[in-house]
Amino acid sequence: MRFFSDNAAPAHPKVIEAIAAANRLDTAYDGDAWSRRLDGAFSDLFGTEVRALWVTTGTAANCLSLAALCPSYRAILCHCDAHIESDEAGAPGFFSGGAKLILLDGAGAKIEPATVSEACDRIRKDVHQVQPAAISITNATEYGLVYRAAEVAALGELARKRGLALQMDGARLANALASTGENIADVTWRAGVDALSFGFVKNGGMNAECVILFRTELADEIVVRRKRAGHLLSKGRYLAAQILALLEDDLWLDNARAANTAAQMLATAAPHRLVYPAEANEVFLKVTPDEAAHLRGQGFDFYDWAAGEIRLVTSWDQKGEPLERLAAAIAAL
Amino acid sequence: MRFFSDNAAPAHPKVIEAIAAANRLDTAYDGDAWSRRLDGAFSDLFGTEVRALWVTTGTAANCLSLAALCPSYRAILCHCDAHIESDEAGAPGFFSGGAKLILLDGAGAKIEPATVSEACDRIRKDVHQVQPAAISITNATEYGLVYRAAEVAALGELARKRGLALQMDGARLANALASTGENIADVTWRAGVDALSFGFVKNGGMNAECVILFRTELADEIVVRRKRAGHLLSKGRYLAAQILALLEDDLWLDNARAANTAAQMLATAAPHRLVYPAEANEVFLKVTPDEAAHLRGQGFDFYDWAAGEIRLVTSWDQKGEPLERLAAAIAAL
Amino acid sequence: MRFFSDNAAPAHPKVIEAIAAANRLDTAYDGDAWSRRLDGAFSDLFGTEVRALWVTTGTAANCLSLAALCPSYRAILCHCDAHIESDEAGAPGFFSGGAKLILLDGAGAKIEPATVSEACDRIRKDVHQVQPAAISITNATEYGLVYRAAEVAALGELARKRGLALQMDGARLANALASTGENIADVTWRAGVDALSFGFVKNGGMNAECVILFRTELADEIVVRRKRAGHLLSKGRYLAAQILALLEDDLWLDNARAANTAAQMLATAAPHRLVYPAEANEVFLKVTPDEAAHLRGQGFDFYDWAAGEIRLVTSWDQKGEPLERLAAAIAAL
Amino acid sequence: MRFFSDNAAPAHPKVIEAIAAANRLDTAYDGDAWSRRLDGAFSDLFGTEVRALWVTTGTAANCLSLAALCPSYRAILCHCDAHIESDEAGAPGFFSGGAKLILLDGAGAKIEPATVSEACDRIRKDVHQVQPAAISITNATEYGLVYRAAEVAALGELARKRGLALQMDGARLANALASTGENIADVTWRAGVDALSFGFVKNGGMNAECVILFRTELADEIVVRRKRAGHLLSKGRYLAAQILALLEDDLWLDNARAANTAAQMLATAAPHRLVYPAEANEVFLKVTPDEAAHLRGQGFDFYDWAAGEIRLVTSWDQKGEPLERLAAAIAAL
Repeated sequence: MRFFSDNAAPAHPKVIEAIAAANRLDTAYDGDAWSRRLDGAFSDLFGTEVRALWVTTGTAANCLSLAALCPSYRAILCHCDAHIESDEAGAPGFFSGGAKLILLDGAGAKIEPATVSEACDRIRKDVHQVQPAAISITNATEYGLVYRAAEVAALGELARKRGLALQMDGARLANALASTGENIADVTWRAGVDALSFGFVKNGGMNAECVILFRTELADEIVVRRKRAGHLLSKGRYLAAQILALLEDDLWLDNARAANTAAQMLATAAPHRLVYPAEANEVFLKVTPDEAAHLRGQGFDFYDWAAGEIRLVTSWDQKGEPLERLAAAIAAL
Repeated sequence: MRFFSDNAAPAHPKVIEAIAAANRLDTAYDGDAWSRRLDGAFSDLFGTEVRALWVTTGTAANCLSLAALCPSYRAILCHCDAHIESDEAGAPGFFSGGAKLILLDGAGAKIEPATVSEACDRIRKDVHQVQPAAISITNATEYGLVYRAAEVAALGELARKRGLALQMDGARLANALASTGENIADVTWRAGVDALSFGFVKNGGMNAECVILFRTELADEIVVRRKRAGHLLSKGRYLAAQILALLEDDLWLDNARAANTAAQMLATAAPHRLVYPAEANEVFLKVTPDEAAHLRGQGFDFYDWAAGEIRLVTSWDQKGEPLERLAAAIAAL
Repeated sequence: MRFFSDNAAPAHPKVIEAIAAANRLDTAYDGDAWSRRLDGAFSDLFGTEVRALWVTTGTAANCLSLAALCPSYRAILCHCDAHIESDEAGAPGFFSGGAKLILLDGAGAKIEPATVSEACDRIRKDVHQVQPAAISITNATEYGLVYRAAEVAALGELARKRGLALQMDGARLANALASTGENIADVTWRAGVDALSFGFVKNGGMNAECVILFRTELADEIVVRRKRAGHLLSKGRYLAAQILALLEDDLWLDNARAANTAAQMLATAAPHRLVYPAEANEVFLKVTPDEAAHLRGQGFDFYDWAAGEIRLVTSWDQKGEPLERLAAAIAAL
Repeated sequence: MRFFSDNAAPAHPKVIEAIAAANRLDTAYDGDAWSRRLDGAFSDLFGTEVRALWVTTGTAANCLSLAALCPSYRAILCHCDAHIESDEAGAPGFFSGGAKLILLDGAGAKIEPATVSEACDRIRKDVHQVQPAAISITNATEYGLVYRAAEVAALGELARKRGLALQMDGARLANALASTGENIADVTWRAGVDALSFGFVKNGGMNAECVILFRTELADEIVVRRKRAGHLLSKGRYLAAQILALLEDDLWLDNARAANTAAQMLATAAPHRLVYPAEANEVFLKVTPDEAAHLRGQGFDFYDWAAGEIRLVTSWDQKGEPLERLAAAIAAL
C-alpha cells in the first residue's frame, strides 16, 4: 500500500462518470456548458461573487494568480518550505517574469503576521531592494497543519495594511476545512484572501484544479495569462465536469474527510512519534531507518523526509484493512 | 451540425475507455507505467530513438520546444498566419523569455525555402538586429495544406546550412499523413525536423498532446521547462493512456482519414468555391454572406473567415447523413 | 569626412565642461544636485509637470517606458522600420517580458491613424490573439521625416479612443522641432504623448538620454525598472550635467539646427536624388554603386542603404568647407 | 566629510582628461579605437586571453554575465548579503528571465565551499526543485572582507566538480588586491573564475565598469545581451577611455591603495570597535546611537548599519587632515 502522495491516488468514480458524460461535442476552450457553470457554482459555494478558472495543475493555479498579483519587479512573501518555493521548479519566477520569493520561517510551514512584518520592515524602501507585493500561504500546509479562519484573517488584515495581496495555495484546502469544520468563506475571502488555488487533483480529481478569484476584476488578465501559458485547454468541458462532479453533494468534502480519517488512524497509532500535529491528511513520524525498513518490509511505501522522519500521505480512497494493518505496524514498532 | 473546429469534437470512445482503465493508483507525475511507455511507443512509430513528453495543449507543445530551440535573444521564422503567431496569445514570447517571431508570407500558410533565405539575408549580422535561431512550420497548415516530405526536407536542409533548428507544429500532422500517405519518418526527422508537436486533441483525444524530440538531448531541458510552466500534471497516466490508445492499431490515422474523408465530401461538392485545395480536414469556401446565412439556416455552424470566405473543419466523428446534407446544401448554393 | 551617424559625433564642448564641473563628491545614484534639477528643468521646458529620468541609451529610454505602458501579454504597434523593431536587438521583448510588436507600414517610417485602426480592427477581441496596449512612433523618423503636431495629435486621439498609450521615440526630436519650429508641448503631451525618449546623445551629448513622463504616476514603476535593468548609474550627476548643459540657452535646439542645416546643404545639392524629403538631419539619396564609390574616393564615408541608395546623417558639428565639398561632389555626380 | 559610499566620490582627474581626449568623432558603439583596445589591455593584465566589455554599472556587469552562465530555469548560489541579492532590485531575475538566487550564510558575507556543498546536497535532483548552475561571490565582500586566491580556488574547484560556473562581483576587486598584494590572475581565472565584474566606478572612474570573460566563448552571447538590455552605448569611447586611463600605470591599484590606507587609518583608531576585520576600504564599527550622533555633530556623514553599527566607506581621494580628524574622533569616543 502506497502513501507517497495523494497525487498518486485514482480519480473518484464519479469523476470518471462525469468525464464520460461530458464526452460530446460542445464549444471549444471554456465556452462549453460545463465551464460556463463554474462561476456560478463557486459563487454559491463561497457565498459571494467569484470568478472560477480551471487549470490542470496547482503550479499553474498558484503562479497565474501570483503573476497577476505581483509585478515582475516585486516580491512574494512565503514560507521557506512553501510548495511555490520548493516544488514548482521556479514557476513563480517564470510566470511573473522574475519576481522574487522572500522566504520566511515558521513552525510546520505556517507563517505568522509578526514574521511577515519583520521581513517587510527589514526591506529598505528604496529602488535598490525588491519591495513585496503579495503574501502566499498554503492551507493545509506542506506539513499538514491547518490555518484557522482567525489566523488567515490576521494575515489578511496585515496584508491590507501594508498594501499586499494575499494568495492561498489550497491544494489541500478541502482537508483543512474537513479538519476544522470552519466555513469556507471565513477561511478565504472573509479573511482577506484575494485569490485561491482550489485543489481537486489530490482529492479525487483527475487533472482539474481551479483558480478562484475573489477580486473578480483580476479575471480578465488571468484568462489571457492562462492562454499565453498554454493552459487554456481545447476541450475544457472535461476539466469543468470533474470539478462540478466533486462539488456536487459536497463530494470534495467527503473525500477530504475520508483522507483525514485515514491519517488520524495512523497518527493515533503512535502519537509520540508525530513530528507535527496531524491536522489534515499528512502524517510525519519519527522513525529510525531500521523501523522504516521494517514497515517497508510489510509492503508499505512512503517517503523518507528529514533524517529520522518519514512522511505518510493518505488519500480519499484509503481505508479498511490495509490501513488498519499499517496503523498496527506503526504502533508495534 | 457544427464545423467550427476539430477542437470541439468529443474524444474517441477508446480514449475514454483507456482513461477509465488507467484509473488506479500509480506513481505521480510521469513516473507511471503509461507515461514510461511513451518513449518506446513513439520510437517504434518513428523508427528512430525519440523522447516523447505529454502536455495538454498544442501551445505548450510548440512553445516548450521553441524555448529550448531559440534563446530569448533570438528569433523564430514562421508564417504570418502560423498558430504560434496568431492564436497562442504570444506564448512563444512568454516561454522563450522574449524571443521574436519573424513573419513570412506564403500561399496557404506554407513557407518556402526561398522566403526563409530572403528573410535571413535581410538581417544584418550584427548585435542590433535579432538573429534567427529556428524555423517553425505547421503541417497540415492553418489553411489545410500539406507539406510533402520533400518540401520539409528542403526546409530542413536550409535550416542545417544556416544553423537553424526546425520545429513542426503537428496539431494536424495525422491529417497531413492521412492525406499524402507518406511515411511519418520521412516527413519529420528524416527531413530534418528537430522537434514535433504531435497533435491528438483535434484527432480523437481528450486533452493530451505530445512533444516528440528527435534531438533527444533536448529532453532534459524541456522536462524542466514543462514542470516550471505548470505543465507536469500530477497524474500523467491519464494523458499517456489517451495517447497510447490512439496509437494502438493506428487509431490516430483512422481518425484522421475519417476527418479528411468528410472534408473531401464537402470540397468536392463545390470545387470551384475552394479558396485552398482541401488537402486535410479544413475546407475554405468562397460564399457570399447570403449563402452563408442560407447554410446556417439549415442548421450548419461554421466560422466566417476572410471577407466572403467560410471555414469548415471536419472531425474524426463526422460522417453519414448530416454530412451528406451539408455537401448537398453547398452544391445547391 | 564621416556621415555614418550622428551617434558618432563628438560631444559638444559645453557638455565636456559640464562633466568636469560636476566632478566632485555628491550623493550617489540620482540623489545629487544635478539629477534633482531635471524634473524642474523639463517641466519648465514642456510647460507642464513632468518626471525626467536620465538613462544612457535610447534603447533603455524607449523600453523602460514601453514596459510600463504595455504588459508582457499585450502588444505595441509601431512601424516596421522603427528603431525598436529593427535596431534594438529585441529589447522591447526583453524589458516587457515578452510583449509583441505589431508592425505597420507607412511611407518614410511614419504611421497614420488609419493604418493603426486597421491593424487593431484585424485583431479578434479574444484571449487567443495578442491585444494592443500602446503605439510607438519615432520623431523624426528613421528616414528623417517629421511628424507635425497635428499628426501626432491625430494618433493621440486615436490612442485615447482605443485605450492605447502613446510613446514617442525622440532620439531626434530636437531635429524634428528645429525643422518645423513647432512648439515642443504641442508635439508631445498636448498631442497625447504619454512618454517620450528625449534624445541628447545624437545631438551633442556624450551618453545621456532622458525619459520624459507626462503621466507622472508612471515614474514610481519606471525608477524601479531602471534600477532593475542596471540603468541606475552610481554617479548620476555626470549624466544630469550633460542634459542640463544642453538645455541651457537652448543649446540642444542650436545643435539640431546646425545638423539640419548641414543636411539641407546636401539635400539641395541634388533634390532629384532624394528618396525622402530631407526634413531633419538624414539625407537618403539615390546613387549608383559607381557614384557611391566616386564619393568615397573623395574621402566621404556613409552607409549604403537599400539597393541604389545611400544614407548621409549630419551632426551638430558638421559645417563649412568639407560639407561644401561634399555638396558640390553630390551635385557633380 | 562623507563616508557614505565610494560610489559618491568624484572621478580621478586622469579619467576626466581621458574623456576630454576621446572627444572626437570615431566609430559608434564599441567600434572605436578605445573600445577595441580593451581586450588586449585586459589580456595583458590577466596574462591570458580575455574578452573585456564595458558597461556602465556593476548591476549590468554582474547580471549580463550571470544570464549567460545560468539558464532561466536554474539557480545561482550566493551569500544572503550579496549585492546581487540585496541591492540590485532583482536584476538577476530580470536579466536571466527568472533564475533563482539560493542564499547562503557565511561570516562577513564570504561563502565557504562546505556551505555551497551543503546547499547543493539539500536540493533533490529532480524537476521539481531548481538546480544550481552558478556560484557568485563578491570580492572584496559587502562587509569589506577579502577572498584570498586559495579561497577562491577552493570554490573554483568545487564549482568544476559540481558542474557550476563561478562568477565574481569585483566592484571592489581593486581594493581586495591592494589589500593582499596577490596576483590578479591567481585570484580570478587561475582560481576558476569564469566571468568577472571588474569595478572602476567606485575606484576613480566616472561611469565605466568592465565585464571580463575568461571563457571568451561567452562573449558572443553577452554582446547581444548587452545590446538587448540597452547597455550598448552609442559612444563607447568615453567608457573605454576611462578604463584605459585607470589601467595606465596601475592607477586603479594606486587608487585602491589610497582608499584602503584611509580605511586602515579609521580601523586602527578603534580596533576593539571593528565588526569585521577592515581588509579593504569598508570599516564597520560598533558605536552607540549617541556616539554616532557625536561623530555626525563633528561633520562626518555615514550610514547606520545593523543596530549599534555604522559603516564608513573610504574613497581613492580621501586622505590628510579631515581623515585624521575622523580617526581622532573615533579614537576619542
